[in-house]
Amino acid sequence: MTNPFFQPVSAMELARFAGVPTFMRLPGLTPKDDRINEVDIGIIGIPWDGGTTNRPGARHGPRQLRDYSTMIRAMNPVTGVAPFTMVNCADLGDVAPNPVDIEDTMNRVTSFYDDLTERGITPLTAGGDHLTTLPVLRALAKSEPLGLIQFDSHTDLFDSYFGGYKYTHGTPFRRAVEEGLVDPKRFVQVGIRGTAYNTEDIDWAEAQGIRIIRIEELFDRGIDDVMAEVREIVGTGQTYCTYDIDFVDPTYAPGTGTPEIGGPNSFQAQQVIRQLSGVNLVGADLVEVAPPFDAAGGTAWLGISLMFELLCVLAQAVDARR
Amino acid sequence: MTNPFFQPVSAMELARFAGVPTFMRLPGLTPKDDRINEVDIGIIGIPWDGGTTNRPGARHGPRQLRDYSTMIRAMNPVTGVAPFTMVNCADLGDVAPNPVDIEDTMNRVTSFYDDLTERGITPLTAGGDHLTTLPVLRALAKSEPLGLIQFDSHTDLFDSYFGGYKYTHGTPFRRAVEEGLVDPKRFVQVGIRGTAYNTEDIDWAEAQGIRIIRIEELFDRGIDDVMAEVREIVGTGQTYCTYDIDFVDPTYAPGTGTPEIGGPNSFQAQQVIRQLSGVNLVGADLVEVAPPFDAAGGTAWLGISLMFELLCVLAQAVDARR
Amino acid sequence: MTNPFFQPVSAMELARFAGVPTFMRLPGLTPKDDRINEVDIGIIGIPWDGGTTNRPGARHGPRQLRDYSTMIRAMNPVTGVAPFTMVNCADLGDVAPNPVDIEDTMNRVTSFYDDLTERGITPLTAGGDHLTTLPVLRALAKSEPLGLIQFDSHTDLFDSYFGGYKYTHGTPFRRAVEEGLVDPKRFVQVGIRGTAYNTEDIDWAEAQGIRIIRIEELFDRGIDDVMAEVREIVGTGQTYCTYDIDFVDPTYAPGTGTPEIGGPNSFQAQQVIRQLSGVNLVGADLVEVAPPFDAAGGTAWLGISLMFELLCVLAQAVDARR
Amino acid sequence: MTNPFFQPVSAMELARFAGVPTFMRLPGLTPKDDRINEVDIGIIGIPWDGGTTNRPGARHGPRQLRDYSTMIRAMNPVTGVAPFTMVNCADLGDVAPNPVDIEDTMNRVTSFYDDLTERGITPLTAGGDHLTTLPVLRALAKSEPLGLIQFDSHTDLFDSYFGGYKYTHGTPFRRAVEEGLVDPKRFVQVGIRGTAYNTEDIDWAEAQGIRIIRIEELFDRGIDDVMAEVREIVGTGQTYCTYDIDFVDPTYAPGTGTPEIGGPNSFQAQQVIRQLSGVNLVGADLVEVAPPFDAAGGTAWLGISLMFELLCVLAQAVDARR
Amino acid sequence: MTNPFFQPVSAMELARFAGVPTFMRLPGLTPKDDRINEVDIGIIGIPWDGGTTNRPGARHGPRQLRDYSTMIRAMNPVTGVAPFTMVNCADLGDVAPNPVDIEDTMNRVTSFYDDLTERGITPLTAGGDHLTTLPVLRALAKSEPLGLIQFDSHTDLFDSYFGGYKYTHGTPFRRAVEEGLVDPKRFVQVGIRGTAYNTEDIDWAEAQGIRIIRIEELFDRGIDDVMAEVREIVGTGQTYCTYDIDFVDPTYAPGTGTPEIGGPNSFQAQQVIRQLSGVNLVGADLVEVAPPFDAAGGTAWLGISLMFELLCVLAQAVDARR
Amino acid sequence: MTNPFFQPVSAMELARFAGVPTFMRLPGLTPKDDRINEVDIGIIGIPWDGGTTNRPGARHGPRQLRDYSTMIRAMNPVTGVAPFTMVNCADLGDVAPNPVDIEDTMNRVTSFYDDLTERGITPLTAGGDHLTTLPVLRALAKSEPLGLIQFDSHTDLFDSYFGGYKYTHGTPFRRAVEEGLVDPKRFVQVGIRGTAYNTEDIDWAEAQGIRIIRIEELFDRGIDDVMAEVREIVGTGQTYCTYDIDFVDPTYAPGTGTPEIGGPNSFQAQQVIRQLSGVNLVGADLVEVAPPFDAAGGTAWLGISLMFELLCVLAQAVDARR
Repeated sequence: MTNPFFQPVSAMELARFAGVPTFMRLPGLTPKDDRINEVDIGIIGIPWDGGTTNRPGARHGPRQLRDYSTMIRAMNPVTGVAPFTMVNCADLGDVAPNPVDIEDTMNRVTSFYDDLTERGITPLTAGGDHLTTLPVLRALAKSEPLGLIQFDSHTDLFDSYFGGYKYTHGTPFRRAVEEGLVDPKRFVQVGIRGTAYNTEDIDWAEAQGIRIIRIEELFDRGIDDVMAEVREIVGTGQTYCTYDIDFVDPTYAPGTGTPEIGGPNSFQAQQVIRQLSGVNLVGADLVEVAPPFDAAGGTAWLGISLMFELLCVLAQAVDARR
Repeated sequence: MTNPFFQPVSAMELARFAGVPTFMRLPGLTPKDDRINEVDIGIIGIPWDGGTTNRPGARHGPRQLRDYSTMIRAMNPVTGVAPFTMVNCADLGDVAPNPVDIEDTMNRVTSFYDDLTERGITPLTAGGDHLTTLPVLRALAKSEPLGLIQFDSHTDLFDSYFGGYKYTHGTPFRRAVEEGLVDPKRFVQVGIRGTAYNTEDIDWAEAQGIRIIRIEELFDRGIDDVMAEVREIVGTGQTYCTYDIDFVDPTYAPGTGTPEIGGPNSFQAQQVIRQLSGVNLVGADLVEVAPPFDAAGGTAWLGISLMFELLCVLAQAVDARR
Repeated sequence: MTNPFFQPVSAMELARFAGVPTFMRLPGLTPKDDRINEVDIGIIGIPWDGGTTNRPGARHGPRQLRDYSTMIRAMNPVTGVAPFTMVNCADLGDVAPNPVDIEDTMNRVTSFYDDLTERGITPLTAGGDHLTTLPVLRALAKSEPLGLIQFDSHTDLFDSYFGGYKYTHGTPFRRAVEEGLVDPKRFVQVGIRGTAYNTEDIDWAEAQGIRIIRIEELFDRGIDDVMAEVREIVGTGQTYCTYDIDFVDPTYAPGTGTPEIGGPNSFQAQQVIRQLSGVNLVGADLVEVAPPFDAAGGTAWLGISLMFELLCVLAQAVDARR
Repeated sequence: MTNPFFQPVSAMELARFAGVPTFMRLPGLTPKDDRINEVDIGIIGIPWDGGTTNRPGARHGPRQLRDYSTMIRAMNPVTGVAPFTMVNCADLGDVAPNPVDIEDTMNRVTSFYDDLTERGITPLTAGGDHLTTLPVLRALAKSEPLGLIQFDSHTDLFDSYFGGYKYTHGTPFRRAVEEGLVDPKRFVQVGIRGTAYNTEDIDWAEAQGIRIIRIEELFDRGIDDVMAEVREIVGTGQTYCTYDIDFVDPTYAPGTGTPEIGGPNSFQAQQVIRQLSGVNLVGADLVEVAPPFDAAGGTAWLGISLMFELLCVLAQAVDARR
Repeated sequence: MTNPFFQPVSAMELARFAGVPTFMRLPGLTPKDDRINEVDIGIIGIPWDGGTTNRPGARHGPRQLRDYSTMIRAMNPVTGVAPFTMVNCADLGDVAPNPVDIEDTMNRVTSFYDDLTERGITPLTAGGDHLTTLPVLRALAKSEPLGLIQFDSHTDLFDSYFGGYKYTHGTPFRRAVEEGLVDPKRFVQVGIRGTAYNTEDIDWAEAQGIRIIRIEELFDRGIDDVMAEVREIVGTGQTYCTYDIDFVDPTYAPGTGTPEIGGPNSFQAQQVIRQLSGVNLVGADLVEVAPPFDAAGGTAWLGISLMFELLCVLAQAVDARR
Repeated sequence: MTNPFFQPVSAMELARFAGVPTFMRLPGLTPKDDRINEVDIGIIGIPWDGGTTNRPGARHGPRQLRDYSTMIRAMNPVTGVAPFTMVNCADLGDVAPNPVDIEDTMNRVTSFYDDLTERGITPLTAGGDHLTTLPVLRALAKSEPLGLIQFDSHTDLFDSYFGGYKYTHGTPFRRAVEEGLVDPKRFVQVGIRGTAYNTEDIDWAEAQGIRIIRIEELFDRGIDDVMAEVREIVGTGQTYCTYDIDFVDPTYAPGTGTPEIGGPNSFQAQQVIRQLSGVNLVGADLVEVAPPFDAAGGTAWLGISLMFELLCVLAQAVDARR
């Protein structure tokens, strides 16, 4: 049953360029709003790039993603999913980051998501750099380790940077496994590429049982085959999907901090998400959109288009759990 | 007495790049909200460029102005005015335009502003091209012709374009005088320049008693002297201020449709507004910000900074009328 | 027999960056020129975006396409077609639009093309938004409904926008079928994708017998197979080809108003046109190039390169009809 | 008497963004056209940057200047000059450069201007880098040395570069004086600034009697005073005016190869030209607009606006000589 | 006596666009080089923006400043100072920052500058955000509090951000005074403007005896008068000069994180530095150049041009102390 | 054995955005340095575009390639090659071009590379336009004609331009074959496409026995098959590889002078190089990166990523010859 309150503003009434831009023209709610308890899926921004080791700017991601999101319509024409009529969706605003303190910010994020978890809201997050995923997982994996599907050109599995610093956007999933938030046997990475420092990350992953599917393997085997394996790896348990925009080729997604050439095109970028239908998703994010490196906004348009795909599979998962 | 509900979100709590961007981080209200009747000054967007004869894009103005407005703080350090503590301000959203029909859009605008007038809300508008001012004046000048202060590089006083078409952004003030919305004797234009088609507009203005102060006169006499004359022309009667961003030199404001070189710099652009203190303003607008011609956003930052100056003098006028 | 008057200026004599930019460095002619009656194919600009519902700017398309067209050489190296030696080509200038009136502009366009039809000139048009195709079809389909091949990411088959407005760039082909300009049984759309409002357009198309080939089908079956079907659908009757630049992936064609990710690359964008060899084409257009969204000009370079491909198959068709 | 053939296309009939862009929408003529002999002032492009020692791109200047020139109207609102009704103006196209040979190109330029001189056409030139002025002077100074007014941030008076190479954009006026094309006693430079290699150029200038007015002197004394001196220096004899866009501050004119901060603004850039009224000008140019460094086109808009000012004083000089 | 080793590479030999870009084409030295002890003035980059509360990117400043610095020549044409022949200058590379830890980075900076101080090298620094000045002052003010001349649009005198965080780019000079690094009686700020949070910073400054010269005062009194007062305030004692690029109007310097309209132009930006001749400068910096917000590089060109002016007055001070 | 002196600076110690940018953070050496004789592979820039017939700017290529090269890490994750540990690599600076003389510049280049050849250094070059390859080949092919593998969209085999001029970036390989520097039977071109002037180049190539593989053939047969043929053509003899960035589709590589749509993507652009493993390479270059047409730097990032791939196969070849 479609809830009229939770429908996006129609472009036939208010042209796409008009209006204050909430995510996908959904109602904007805060924890103080009564109706927040009707929300099934909350879209949240985490405007933070405190873990970035090279080119910053992902803190500006949620703003630009919201801007372009007003060009998103209501229905997935391929899968037929119409998320806004299946589940109640809302823009829950941004987590307030502390740009000058990493630990404080991580605590703020976890606290925000703890509240969502208590309300039974499934989160779809717009980053922020990849370190933002760690405090989200801390909230979502309270009861048990999650499966993890990571689309990315980097493993983000390093131990530390700059002489022992443990929290950067190159280390979150090492921490997540160490903290027991992610089950390494149900953790798969897709799209890895780019020149390497060494094999530290790969060796550690192997030792843990993490499955790494490099870009060459993805292109050789094809999306259908690879994604079938991905679904098998995570199985039916609770699973999180994290999508780094640098998974996509930098010509398609220049607005990011650490681009690596030789990646998928935008069609392939959509296809891998559509293959997540049926996975027991408890949350998802799209991270590393850095608008200063793509003022023209193409990366944000790609990013929000992919977030809509993520929303469609999340809506299916939420619906399936009812 | 400061009303906490109507205070902007503090950057010390939520960093400037975070959050859904309403104008100046004010609360966003619609006519359906109860609290709308507490509003003294409403900031409204009119995202429409249907009257544009050359380079379109002003329909995207309000969105980008809102985005940059989150860098505006709370107080005017020169005049000492702190508008948000003097009067209740709110973002009232955008008028829904009809991009494919001029007459329909003008009616929608007038209707929206009629409602504001009935509620006693003083409007500060973000255009839109300069034709947007006409339907606003139709709502505000219901009872009597207004005085008009126009900062602009063009007179916008032509009779018609393209073989007799009467409603373009080059004609609004010809219409406004003809319709009795503006008293030509209390109408002054400042900053006029640029190559001319002919002297049709100037001759007509002269015949009506409209005062035109070209840019050369402004620079020769200085801002203090010219603005004293401006205040004298409009006197103590109800007055509207319309500020076309192309008043400013196009190096400072490239994001506009019809730039003319040789204009004021950003400091002068501020100064002329500060000199409106004491004028009996019943509304103001800033128009012709066209983001596609300045994706980097400098024009929007200038524009919203000028809107804050306009807000300060509007707040003084509202306060004075109490 | 090559007509020296109708040859482009050679880059070996006048470097590509030099000279006043007519389309492909062809002679520029107006209806007043005697030699206009020797023209076989006229290239015309329709600089108009009055039907645009979201991001305007296509009115600037013809100018930028002409600019980049001076990098086009004389021969298609794949098909071997050398259009300028097969038929007489000329730049016939732009139709004068009325930026503030849709109906007036459509009448101006139809009138311009009526004149071309009377002179036996086959038109290749540079838009303009997609509404520009409707008044062109009104001129070309005077005697009988045409077949139509549409490369596009959108169907443009909606009934109306903004509360009943019938003429926008989202509605032209609904109107064209209703007006009997296009035979729905000989109408095929290729490349459709993007999030959907609903299924109104698709349902209506189905009811009319219009064939819609979505992007997934194009990629699955391959260009050869799909284009064979396209040729079969339009058969040997008179056919028009309309090519919306947003058919191509927005990374390749960012300079357009309504981009949709997941589209063809530039090689595929060329291939589909080369497969039109043998079709009885009576005209073609390339629309929706909006330079304000791609100041760097990549979209225009792609667009004019595709226009050269269209010119090659048009020249073959003109030649075949002799 | 206004000659209808030589009037620009009106924007009231053909919108500014439409049409093939000749300079200022004037008729385009070549030496083969009969009507070329009716031309009083010819506007010519020299798309060449073969003398550029640092950042190239001025070869693209004329194209972009033509593009923006369609926003120029018919009358100078300050001086009242309406050049198109005073004298016959036309776009005479571009000189064909040889991008890979300096000497050949200089000969091509001189030959083109010799032909104009023979026809009695006064040239207004759009460069090209500053070396383009030298071959123009070779044609114009056939009978006697000219006076020269140079607006520039650099003296361009060096002897040679890169180990003895004599023809670069840093040396043209050394050559012009050496070749007897310019009378050093009637040669004045205005606006010189920027860090210096050494004092070679200044010392040589002083020895020749060339007057150099640095930017500090221009700002201290004011435009009126300095320009009175300039007029006195060149006197009543034949005089050429060369305007390097880098005279203007690079924030106003980023699109140039060798920017120097601390220059005039766009109003001052206009004022100095208006003060040339009464000078016996036999030609003028605007050089060093390099579009690759200002794709947004602000520099070209400034440049063509200044060319219109130059056209107004040229028209007065041509008229005065009749 | 000019030391040939410390001369910049000549553009007459190696064109400006060629070569690995050290600052001003000077020799690059590290602490391990023997010749480092011959250095009088070291130019150092601190690529760090860890204190940035809004738009990051100043970490990329030194790289882009070096790139544009190859267009700097050898001599100041106004003051006649030729720094490279007065004192030995060298590029000493960048301090290695830790992008994910503020305290660690500040310690690294202080340690680097301690070493310079021990070697008797006077530093000219390219930031980095304004927090970078604090650890530099910690090294330079070891023996006594310094005078401080700050060109800026912000006071950077706040106590804390985001709930008590003490080290941001809005707080360094509060800390510097508290730590006794700067003598508040010999501390003057020039150019302050922009909307205000409140008067916390101003009130605190007043209480300390810090002199704040707002932009209005600078424009009213003129540069000569104001700078005479500045020189008087700092007197003959050791003085540091910190120049935030946002002192300059954002149209001239868009590439910065917190722009404020209504500032000086580039000529005025130079003039204030030239007036520092005679001040007993022991170091200087230029901070807050953020290339992601000005990819075209105009801000960097302005910034390095100002650094050359700073170098000239530093060289005079070093020379005077010999 | 890894030589510590020749290792790139680690990003774990010095963040990627910091430091003076030599190629791939390698040590910078000049012929005067003692350690130059330990170098196996030298990376050299030739910042020159004197042969460019259309859009210049490749002279700025090496600077921007160096800038982006600091994001290159140490190891090829696909082939496992770690070039810096296999052979000694260094940045040998730029050849000093003469921007105003073609012949002089070509002599300077050949002389520079003669010196490298004498020292036994294998060169990897960053252009510059494609004419730069000719003087490099003159140095490398002193003893015998080389095999040549050219990735390009143009043949560059024309005889002359602009009325007989023999040295442009459209003619280098005609000259190279004529001068006996390249064995036409061991010369293969891959990726040729774009509209054609005529068949002069193709006909001449055929007559010489040069193998041209058009883009259609590359896509039809696939990279593995085509590259096997390429390896067979050049055989075991000394071979040079020249890679024009316009081989890649212009959406991936907009920063180039003569783009042609319909080219390979970035993954394919890498793959063709990886297939050169085993070829007896004596040098390689990447040319035609023109930063003014891609200020955002995507082309440079692609270009340097491809240079790293070239370095890997060069290192293998050098290692194999030991």
